[in-house]
Amino acid sequence: MSELNKILAANEEYSKDFRHGQLSHMPSRKIAILTCMDTRLAVEDSLGLKTGDAHILRNAGGIATDDAIRSLIISHELLGTEEFFVINHTNCGMLTFNDEELRKKLSEKYKTNASALKFHSFPDLEANVKNQIDKIKSTPFLPKDIQVYGFVYDVKTGRLKEVAGKEREKE
Amino acid sequence: MSELNKILAANEEYSKDFRHGQLSHMPSRKIAILTCMDTRLAVEDSLGLKTGDAHILRNAGGIATDDAIRSLIISHELLGTEEFFVINHTNCGMLTFNDEELRKKLSEKYKTNASALKFHSFPDLEANVKNQIDKIKSTPFLPKDIQVYGFVYDVKTGRLKEVAGKEREKE
Repeated sequence: MSELNKILAANEEYSKDFRHGQLSHMPSRKIAILTCMDTRLAVEDSLGLKTGDAHILRNAGGIATDDAIRSLIISHELLGTEEFFVINHTNCGMLTFNDEELRKKLSEKYKTNASALKFHSFPDLEANVKNQIDKIKSTPFLPKDIQVYGFVYDVKTGRLKEVAGKEREKE
Repeated sequence: MSELNKILAANEEYSKDFRHGQLSHMPSRKIAILTCMDTRLAVEDSLGLKTGDAHILRNAGGIATDDAIRSLIISHELLGTEEFFVINHTNCGMLTFNDEELRKKLSEKYKTNASALKFHSFPDLEANVKNQIDKIKSTPFLPKDIQVYGFVYDVKTGRLKEVAGKEREKE
């Protein structure tokens, strides 16, 4: 069966027992997650999120690009989120190349100059998480005191490691 | 319990029974999904995707921004995906405002000129999906014949409606 038909068949089954038709468009837990598109990340399951709880933003690397910041501004300003979680992960593809190599490869393959492309590859995982938090915190269009936590997710163990943000509160 | 502690506690539980430590970083079904960050979208469940099957890209609206296209190029070129699925949804927040209003609101609230910000709000759902496909197909750094399907997901019923792409193949 084609991928298209697999998806349509799975959605047909899903919609038969659909239970989320009355959910609000406002995330009930007022949180937004920014993480990687990586295929090994089961975002909801690994963080205990239910449908309706959170905004989930994903791109290559879990990078606070202008586009991710656009989404976070909309999330906070129009849809009420108040805390952000930035999650990068071990064994990320973005650690395995550098932008210059990929630009060169694409320029040759497509006979088109790729020198303007920025891919946001990075060499250090924890430093990268902290850089993304700095980018979000420096946006003039979010509250100065908005809470942004940073994590590295280990794809071999399924565990989160907190690498930035407020110290864990005592229960 | 704080949102941070809820997430850490849920992840602690998740990692106790972790079964995905041996998954490849290459999506096994060679597909990438571009959709909205909306809290009502259970992407894996509604499309029948398992952990390890696909790349999942999400931003406000499910827009093929430069950042989403960056991610799709990495997905295809370095991680082997061959088909893309663009999914927007009914009752999307992006249908409820226009960029100019939001820029004005932010400029006043933060006393900083927001006129350079682009939010990608849109008035027509199906037309928006088709526009995103056109943007992806016009990128010079993806194969000309890469398959891109377009859908609208109905948040009241959980059903996908195909609005663009190749005609459904016969089984």
